[in-house]
Amino acid sequence: MSTKKQLRIGLIGTGFMGRTHSNGYNRVPNFFPELEFTPVLKAVCSRNAEKVQAFADQWGYESIETDWKALIARDDIDAVDICTPNDSHAEIAIAAAKAGKMILCEKPLSRNLAEGQAMVDAIEKAGVQSTVWYNYRRLPAVTLAKQIVDSGKLGKIYHYRANFLQDWTISADLPQGGTGLWRMDSEAAGSGVTGDLLAHCIDTAMWLNGAITDVSAVTETFVKERMHQLTGKVQPVGIDDACIFHCHFANGSLGLFESTRYARGHKALYTFEINGADASIRWDLHDLNRLEYFDHRDESIVRGWRSIIVTDGDQPYMNKWWVGGLGIGYEHSFIHQVADFLKSLEAGTPCSPTFKEALQTQKVCEAVIESANSRSWKDTNVDGDFV
Amino acid sequence: MSTKKQLRIGLIGTGFMGRTHSNGYNRVPNFFPELEFTPVLKAVCSRNAEKVQAFADQWGYESIETDWKALIARDDIDAVDICTPNDSHAEIAIAAAKAGKMILCEKPLSRNLAEGQAMVDAIEKAGVQSTVWYNYRRLPAVTLAKQIVDSGKLGKIYHYRANFLQDWTISADLPQGGTGLWRMDSEAAGSGVTGDLLAHCIDTAMWLNGAITDVSAVTETFVKERMHQLTGKVQPVGIDDACIFHCHFANGSLGLFESTRYARGHKALYTFEINGADASIRWDLHDLNRLEYFDHRDESIVRGWRSIIVTDGDQPYMNKWWVGGLGIGYEHSFIHQVADFLKSLEAGTPCSPTFKEALQTQKVCEAVIESANSRSWKDTNVDGDFV
Amino acid sequence: MSTKKQLRIGLIGTGFMGRTHSNGYNRVPNFFPELEFTPVLKAVCSRNAEKVQAFADQWGYESIETDWKALIARDDIDAVDICTPNDSHAEIAIAAAKAGKMILCEKPLSRNLAEGQAMVDAIEKAGVQSTVWYNYRRLPAVTLAKQIVDSGKLGKIYHYRANFLQDWTISADLPQGGTGLWRMDSEAAGSGVTGDLLAHCIDTAMWLNGAITDVSAVTETFVKERMHQLTGKVQPVGIDDACIFHCHFANGSLGLFESTRYARGHKALYTFEINGADASIRWDLHDLNRLEYFDHRDESIVRGWRSIIVTDGDQPYMNKWWVGGLGIGYEHSFIHQVADFLKSLEAGTPCSPTFKEALQTQKVCEAVIESANSRSWKDTNVDGDFV
Amino acid sequence: MSTKKQLRIGLIGTGFMGRTHSNGYNRVPNFFPELEFTPVLKAVCSRNAEKVQAFADQWGYESIETDWKALIARDDIDAVDICTPNDSHAEIAIAAAKAGKMILCEKPLSRNLAEGQAMVDAIEKAGVQSTVWYNYRRLPAVTLAKQIVDSGKLGKIYHYRANFLQDWTISADLPQGGTGLWRMDSEAAGSGVTGDLLAHCIDTAMWLNGAITDVSAVTETFVKERMHQLTGKVQPVGIDDACIFHCHFANGSLGLFESTRYARGHKALYTFEINGADASIRWDLHDLNRLEYFDHRDESIVRGWRSIIVTDGDQPYMNKWWVGGLGIGYEHSFIHQVADFLKSLEAGTPCSPTFKEALQTQKVCEAVIESANSRSWKDTNVDGDFV
Repeated sequence: MSTKKQLRIGLIGTGFMGRTHSNGYNRVPNFFPELEFTPVLKAVCSRNAEKVQAFADQWGYESIETDWKALIARDDIDAVDICTPNDSHAEIAIAAAKAGKMILCEKPLSRNLAEGQAMVDAIEKAGVQSTVWYNYRRLPAVTLAKQIVDSGKLGKIYHYRANFLQDWTISADLPQGGTGLWRMDSEAAGSGVTGDLLAHCIDTAMWLNGAITDVSAVTETFVKERMHQLTGKVQPVGIDDACIFHCHFANGSLGLFESTRYARGHKALYTFEINGADASIRWDLHDLNRLEYFDHRDESIVRGWRSIIVTDGDQPYMNKWWVGGLGIGYEHSFIHQVADFLKSLEAGTPCSPTFKEALQTQKVCEAVIESANSRSWKDTNVDGDFV
Repeated sequence: MSTKKQLRIGLIGTGFMGRTHSNGYNRVPNFFPELEFTPVLKAVCSRNAEKVQAFADQWGYESIETDWKALIARDDIDAVDICTPNDSHAEIAIAAAKAGKMILCEKPLSRNLAEGQAMVDAIEKAGVQSTVWYNYRRLPAVTLAKQIVDSGKLGKIYHYRANFLQDWTISADLPQGGTGLWRMDSEAAGSGVTGDLLAHCIDTAMWLNGAITDVSAVTETFVKERMHQLTGKVQPVGIDDACIFHCHFANGSLGLFESTRYARGHKALYTFEINGADASIRWDLHDLNRLEYFDHRDESIVRGWRSIIVTDGDQPYMNKWWVGGLGIGYEHSFIHQVADFLKSLEAGTPCSPTFKEALQTQKVCEAVIESANSRSWKDTNVDGDFV
Repeated sequence: MSTKKQLRIGLIGTGFMGRTHSNGYNRVPNFFPELEFTPVLKAVCSRNAEKVQAFADQWGYESIETDWKALIARDDIDAVDICTPNDSHAEIAIAAAKAGKMILCEKPLSRNLAEGQAMVDAIEKAGVQSTVWYNYRRLPAVTLAKQIVDSGKLGKIYHYRANFLQDWTISADLPQGGTGLWRMDSEAAGSGVTGDLLAHCIDTAMWLNGAITDVSAVTETFVKERMHQLTGKVQPVGIDDACIFHCHFANGSLGLFESTRYARGHKALYTFEINGADASIRWDLHDLNRLEYFDHRDESIVRGWRSIIVTDGDQPYMNKWWVGGLGIGYEHSFIHQVADFLKSLEAGTPCSPTFKEALQTQKVCEAVIESANSRSWKDTNVDGDFV
Repeated sequence: MSTKKQLRIGLIGTGFMGRTHSNGYNRVPNFFPELEFTPVLKAVCSRNAEKVQAFADQWGYESIETDWKALIARDDIDAVDICTPNDSHAEIAIAAAKAGKMILCEKPLSRNLAEGQAMVDAIEKAGVQSTVWYNYRRLPAVTLAKQIVDSGKLGKIYHYRANFLQDWTISADLPQGGTGLWRMDSEAAGSGVTGDLLAHCIDTAMWLNGAITDVSAVTETFVKERMHQLTGKVQPVGIDDACIFHCHFANGSLGLFESTRYARGHKALYTFEINGADASIRWDLHDLNRLEYFDHRDESIVRGWRSIIVTDGDQPYMNKWWVGGLGIGYEHSFIHQVADFLKSLEAGTPCSPTFKEALQTQKVCEAVIESANSRSWKDTNVDGDFV
């Protein structure tokens, strides 16, 4: 492996996403041996020295830092991977850009549009490579959906609908904020399901179906007050527990999006469906190796939704894995994103979604929240060139 | 059968719904022999004498009429069943009420709220029995859903979502208006998918989950002009091809509804799902003998959505049919509604949904159309006492 | 309807099958108005006069008999429909044939091969029309399967597998024999699941895939003794609770069949699947309006099992019913069989499966039981000309 | 990581299974950091020096060998992992045992019972740790099935059925033997689907449901002659393309097994179902994170098959991975097996299935082939103590 070019990674944040990204870096050399670049786990950073050392040991990082500024200042780091809660994305990313580092930032890009715009400005000024971990794009069934859409098989698109349903915050006893629970705290997260879950749906949607132009939304916070883990006090809940919006796409199709953490029975039910004049597709994260496809051009008496097991070598990414019928999992989306990032370095091209592209998702999220707050339609001002 | 009390039916309209209702009347004596009343097919009415005679022969009507006013004037008719296009519901119903006839009216009650209110006023003034054929309530799986909701098993309700997806009007060559196509003509139908399809979803929703208080909607007419079958001219299309709305229920839950005739791959995909704090249910018309149920109180390691085949004798209506596992079909919902109407006569009670109850659905439909037209939220003014 | 030719029916037996057949006769005029013949419910026969009169009232039979010999002797009966337990099929059928009546016999044809052969001999000598109610052939999805097979779409067939799983006899407290339970009594039934359930699977299989040539079977009686309802005594159970066999078809394919009444969770899970070199199909009675179809010739990246909702007008029988997406039920298979029987009278052709064809199924059942008893392979001696 | 005890691995064979095992070794330190032992990839062996070096580079092996005897002779190897075609399992395993190495052998244990017995004798004589890679046991849903069975939830077991259906050898142009195709060559493989696929089903079955006592089988070779890749000549095909058998388990339940490579539409459809008096379970490799469970003790009107998404922290292995709803893949079964092997070293216990346990599966396979060849029932002589 000595002949490979190194991409020396500095990871900030050792939570759930710190694990998925680290696994991505570790797996790529085994499954994408043809790549010119190889990731090197140079350093990992988190405040607690003991915990971050344990993380480094477990995942194979060469060194640790307890101050992200120290990590950014290091000469032996090429790329900074931001896995911290949303409220530090902007500050870290802007500093990293100034330091000339490539940046891989966990989604959502930022808590709000203003922060996101500042981040885009920073990386553009610095001229550094950027990407945001909208990982679901890189599941084979989702990438196959993209291929199908781009092939024109669907014909004119009439409908796009997606939802992301969970049920983990129903208990009123669940505290807000603090370790493992920052997603419940509007200060740390920016928003609730809109930024956490709908951002995924919006990213996929605009990737597949183009710009969303205007939205009409409703949000709800079912549990109005919760004990805050950090203060120990019962405080108003600032996040949206649920968010629904309908919208127009620039191509004339109607969109419908829903997300909630109060849909009993659903752990992580991210589904989308696209209806075109000639064909339709749909997908469900709970059964992630399958894509359903309906083609109206099939002979009428034997026409029906096809259940495609996306595990064959001619389907996206699957020539890297096992044999037909043997599925992969959630974590592979991150492995594929690392591989694609390395390929983009090789090719000298951006790795989608860049910060600028992810900013478009941020615009939609902002319009959604504003629409819900004002009970009115809002334009998104998405810049279609980047989607 | 000579000891049975007769309910002498006069049917107006011999289209799709004329067939489903006639089948309902014919089947009830075989499967509900215990009922005190029995339907007698006294007369059927349609403009074309030859066609209506053929219909009478096929379904066993004793006589025909070609003028609905003549049918209403007959002394040997107890109940008038209105299966005509929507634009004649009000006129016929009001006249029938004045003539003291019971009325069974095909859904939607009317083209708009004003007509519906006049119909309610008429039957209330006349003091006659009324019902509207929101038949899906009477499918066993849907009635079981009602039992489950009423039992309190779901706990506090957070979400209600429903859709009704079809794909039969995608071709731009499909004409509007005329025989078999009046649903495409806004004059005849009042609205497009809102009155035709969403009315079903709204009726079920308020039956299961109570009043809808306010709505925010969007509609779309994808094909803007179509040849009109009656005029032979290409004319603007006045109906909504698709309609999406979100809403609040009086119980604090969020609602989400979508309907379209442009969802390639779906013939009649009416589905609904309700999420409560303790349990959830969902249903799909394409697999109508099944109800899915998730109970969070199940032991955690073996917890999952239950696929309930609703065909056992202790499940609604099913002791009338075959044995466990052997499903029934779409048409049975109408048979059940006839049986329930006859039971209501026996008991001297209203047969839900009465005109007054169906008017609440009309209020929501009206608010939906107004919301879409004005791009703003609209209150429904649903009167909760009747739902 | 006065111009129709009458098929005057005399029904013997008023149990579950008496109901399904009566419903079939009653529905045909409404849904198949074009037929030259119409069924007339002339008489129904059962031992208990009061009960049979109630049945006649419910279903519209003109008269009753309490002795089947009296029914057969009547001049105003054209066709005898045998719905009695299996132990009287042969005696009644032979007598009816001698009396020159057409015969519609509930499946299985007989308790054993010897009885079945005598029945075939009798109807051949008498030259009367015969059919056996293997009703599942006439479900639209199953008939569509036949069309697909006959079209050659599947290519060379390698595998046929079917099962019929129930769970209603697991309790050791369930008595054997007597009203509603004769299927538990080997004297009355001939066999257990083999004649009751596998006979259906075998009939469909040979209709779709040709003759079964030899079989290797195993049977099991899980509960060895049960109280007999008629004697009140605990007696050995003579029926097979479960039966599995594998076999060869004349076309070189392998077959696999399983039936049981001890498969907890399955009410009436009749499924079959056929694998050909080019395509495969499968079907499940619990979701009877759906046929699944896999075509290897589909473009590889979007290849998958198609879920065909068999409710469109160009699919078998469905132009008689409602509109696309609106399913029918179990009972419709009997309505279709009545219609096909009437058509066969019109055309002067046999109505498959005739007694002679049903005898082939009997041969396989006999070989299966003999194979299980002797723990050895058995030839079926099926006469391929009739399948 | 320096404080961990090392398990120094020598891998023989660099095909499909060489990759899955190597991935298993590499992943364990990241996901099972609490283990006392850590695998060290000391050496990999294959005949072609260039290819094996590439494999070593890709997967991180420290060194290579081109002669397996050299690998076994090395002092720095603790455990030999055998991933070669079946015809060399016995020779290598016996030599490795003599050299005092632990052995991890890819399934099936051997080509036939005699070889397998010699392997068991060798490891018992040497007193070394052994395991066979029947990996499917370690998928969380399958392990959960084991927990459910062991809990007694199912009640008395009546039925066990399993199949493993593929479609990759249908083309008559597919050669037999040679690189990547040794599974088609009876010399190298021992048998066809029986050893390759049914062995998995049998291993799982006896693990879950105890000893299989006797079998009645049929096999078929649909394509009788194929070109041999090594000789270039068209030769008779010696393997079974399809195999079906039914059997008795020692607990009185009936078993049914089927495997084929000619089931068009199925890539790797390994499914099993167990029916007990109180509850049933079923599973499908194509949807591997789901287990279906039916509990008859559920309230009757809401009773149904539960679709359990096996991704929660209290379900087997899943506290090591992500969060609820986020599935894992095929490869994880191997990672879990490595972890369990390391745990067994820590605990000083055997790691099931040991060679002795895997020999029981071999006995059933042998009986199945003999039964098919002789068209008669065969006893398996499985030694129940080891299952």
